[in-house]
Amino acid sequence: MEKINIGILGYGVVGVGVAKLLKQKKQLLEDRTGAVLYLKTIADIDTTTDRGLDIGDTQLVSDANLIIDDPGIDIIVETIGGETIAKAFILKALENKKHVVTANKALLAGHGNDLVKTARKNLVDLAFEASTGGCMPIIKSLRESLVANDIKSMSGILNGTCNYILTKISKDGSEFETALKDAQELGYAEAEPSLDIDGFDTAHKLAILNSLAHGMEINLNDIHVEGIRNITPVDIEFAKEFGYTIKLLAIGKIHKEHVEARVHPTMIPNSNPLSYVDTSMNAIVIDADATGQTMLYGHGAGMMPTASAVLSDIADIARNIISGTKRRVPILGYPEDNIKPIEILPMEELYTRYYLRFEAQDHPGVLSKISGILGENNISIKSVHQKGRKTNGKVPIVMITHIAKEAWVQKALKEISKTDSVVGDPVVIRIEEAAQE
Amino acid sequence: MEKINIGILGYGVVGVGVAKLLKQKKQLLEDRTGAVLYLKTIADIDTTTDRGLDIGDTQLVSDANLIIDDPGIDIIVETIGGETIAKAFILKALENKKHVVTANKALLAGHGNDLVKTARKNLVDLAFEASTGGCMPIIKSLRESLVANDIKSMSGILNGTCNYILTKISKDGSEFETALKDAQELGYAEAEPSLDIDGFDTAHKLAILNSLAHGMEINLNDIHVEGIRNITPVDIEFAKEFGYTIKLLAIGKIHKEHVEARVHPTMIPNSNPLSYVDTSMNAIVIDADATGQTMLYGHGAGMMPTASAVLSDIADIARNIISGTKRRVPILGYPEDNIKPIEILPMEELYTRYYLRFEAQDHPGVLSKISGILGENNISIKSVHQKGRKTNGKVPIVMITHIAKEAWVQKALKEISKTDSVVGDPVVIRIEEAAQE
Repeated sequence: MEKINIGILGYGVVGVGVAKLLKQKKQLLEDRTGAVLYLKTIADIDTTTDRGLDIGDTQLVSDANLIIDDPGIDIIVETIGGETIAKAFILKALENKKHVVTANKALLAGHGNDLVKTARKNLVDLAFEASTGGCMPIIKSLRESLVANDIKSMSGILNGTCNYILTKISKDGSEFETALKDAQELGYAEAEPSLDIDGFDTAHKLAILNSLAHGMEINLNDIHVEGIRNITPVDIEFAKEFGYTIKLLAIGKIHKEHVEARVHPTMIPNSNPLSYVDTSMNAIVIDADATGQTMLYGHGAGMMPTASAVLSDIADIARNIISGTKRRVPILGYPEDNIKPIEILPMEELYTRYYLRFEAQDHPGVLSKISGILGENNISIKSVHQKGRKTNGKVPIVMITHIAKEAWVQKALKEISKTDSVVGDPVVIRIEEAAQE
Repeated sequence: MEKINIGILGYGVVGVGVAKLLKQKKQLLEDRTGAVLYLKTIADIDTTTDRGLDIGDTQLVSDANLIIDDPGIDIIVETIGGETIAKAFILKALENKKHVVTANKALLAGHGNDLVKTARKNLVDLAFEASTGGCMPIIKSLRESLVANDIKSMSGILNGTCNYILTKISKDGSEFETALKDAQELGYAEAEPSLDIDGFDTAHKLAILNSLAHGMEINLNDIHVEGIRNITPVDIEFAKEFGYTIKLLAIGKIHKEHVEARVHPTMIPNSNPLSYVDTSMNAIVIDADATGQTMLYGHGAGMMPTASAVLSDIADIARNIISGTKRRVPILGYPEDNIKPIEILPMEELYTRYYLRFEAQDHPGVLSKISGILGENNISIKSVHQKGRKTNGKVPIVMITHIAKEAWVQKALKEISKTDSVVGDPVVIRIEEAAQE
């Protein structure tokens, strides 16, 4: 039986998960792939901490080059994370003609185009199913299953931390800070949570998905990103009254000449299947022209779900090796020569519907003032809700708009802020209707 | 650019969809696969009816052998359906060293083991993503994405006709016959609907999924199958009161030495994501040991969703051909030598919970009589519901049991039927709790 040698860079949570799964599923993997997937070496600067796993005759070393330069190793799994050392290691591994598997979305989103070029130059594979959506097979779906589709839109819950926090606020009315603390205590959120809760992690994933969906160069910088820090129980309560749920969504849509790509808290109606995706679960709805609406749902993170996705990449590469081939499916779903830069629509050009909540002075004429300014800016109001909850002489006024242009809304809100009718900045939550079937 | 020649057997709905997609997505498919996917010939006994599609220089012939025996054709797509001609054509195509793509679940469930053997003998591929779950990538997920997982359980809504009918009864209280007629008028159900509504189509799909999930020979005959003809608005109303929804589920679970495989109407709690899958949509929840619970959701049928799945198979085989390989992933997910016969648990051995509805005589002692017989048969009752709806002197008594053995329940029901306490056969609906995370 052919033996395929594997090295793991980074022996943290994901690295341990991969090592564990390679060990636990040794027989299953042999039965299914017809190859021995042998974990030859693991490298980590910490070679002493007990990870609670007997790795048998696998070497645990502190020098990553003992893997990267080992001519006996076929596949290198990078589970270090971050964009500095991990990038250098991956580039060197690719230069050394190793196939690389990584879960590193930050690196792919920031430097993926370079990595893809290097993999191409060296005729090796670069695989990253675990980078986005954890164990949901979203990368494989876009690269393979949806091959005959134009992807019209994608909307995904791609960060379990944010989804946990929003679920918590929604279920028990917690304030954001309380819900975040709860998530941190349960291990769903990092001590430094910004990458998750400010939407950056979701944006990394959207950058990857956009590229795969449309054959476009990876473009992180032009994605509009907002996080969930400003979401309050009040807005979630209003959303419920209107039959909506608030989720942090990654939204990607194709237009004629460009792509729409944005990450922000979004109100979705209960007819959207994403509205049922709670706790730390991830899901993505893809609307493609032949398939119509499809959804994938699963654990977006965690040791074993992530390891499962890494193993699917390892098995894919192993099946290539024993079939005598490589680079069978292009890394980004399209051969590199067919990947184009596609512009991301500037956010001001977006047309959508809006939920606007103002803290208004409780005196006559305020509503007329606000709605007047909106009207002057072409923004048509679908409904106005003004009820109870008066605090310090202020009342919340909530307005749902018809479809309006982001630039108009931003201009109107600036004008409204300058009046004495409202206090502080309004809350703006964009509304996404369910995809039409 | 390499040219891959394709022939289609059967120019009905799915055949037209595949031809349409090959034409519409010619450029996209070339951009993504780097090959020309050329539809050389279509065969159908009806060569005259206008299908509304300009097929250009593709030949439309009445003799399937013009495709099967054409040495220029690489991939044959079978969209005839049924188990007679289709089987003969596929076997001959495989013998002629053609790769075959089919959506024919009845054939695969009934004769798949033979087809797999023939494909192996002739070293060609047999692909069938479109056979189960339409455009949901369930076949690819089981064969590739979940490669490092033991599949603990699968539960799926795999027949859009049944799901449409059950949704209709649930939403507007229609009787079964009315809902069926409505489904027929809308084209969701055939004039002869038995294959769908009696559960056989779902069983075909479960037989395929079981094989892929566990590396077992395809076994249709031992799957327990019940359809939805006896589902009434009354039962759906009771289900709602208990927080349940009734769905026709395909259920597959692995035990130590055997698998559990059954198709029947099932009550599932609203915490189960399948409970939100309405109309003709399909979905499957897979509980695997590394990933935990994942779900796929999408159109299970229809011209273009089915064609999309067929095209994903064609592209897979095309990518093999231009990579100079074939049979890269085993047809059933495991190399044929590793596929074992695994016994399906006899239904009487099943342990689950039950919803039982009796039409009881409205006189004292009836409840005691029924519950006495259940108790004598080890069946412990969780709750009893007896309310209103008295018709012709009968009242419905509904009981929810704790976990009990199917054999005990069948025996008890027989005994209860022999008493004068109830009229007619009781309604028995098994209850499936949400998978534990």
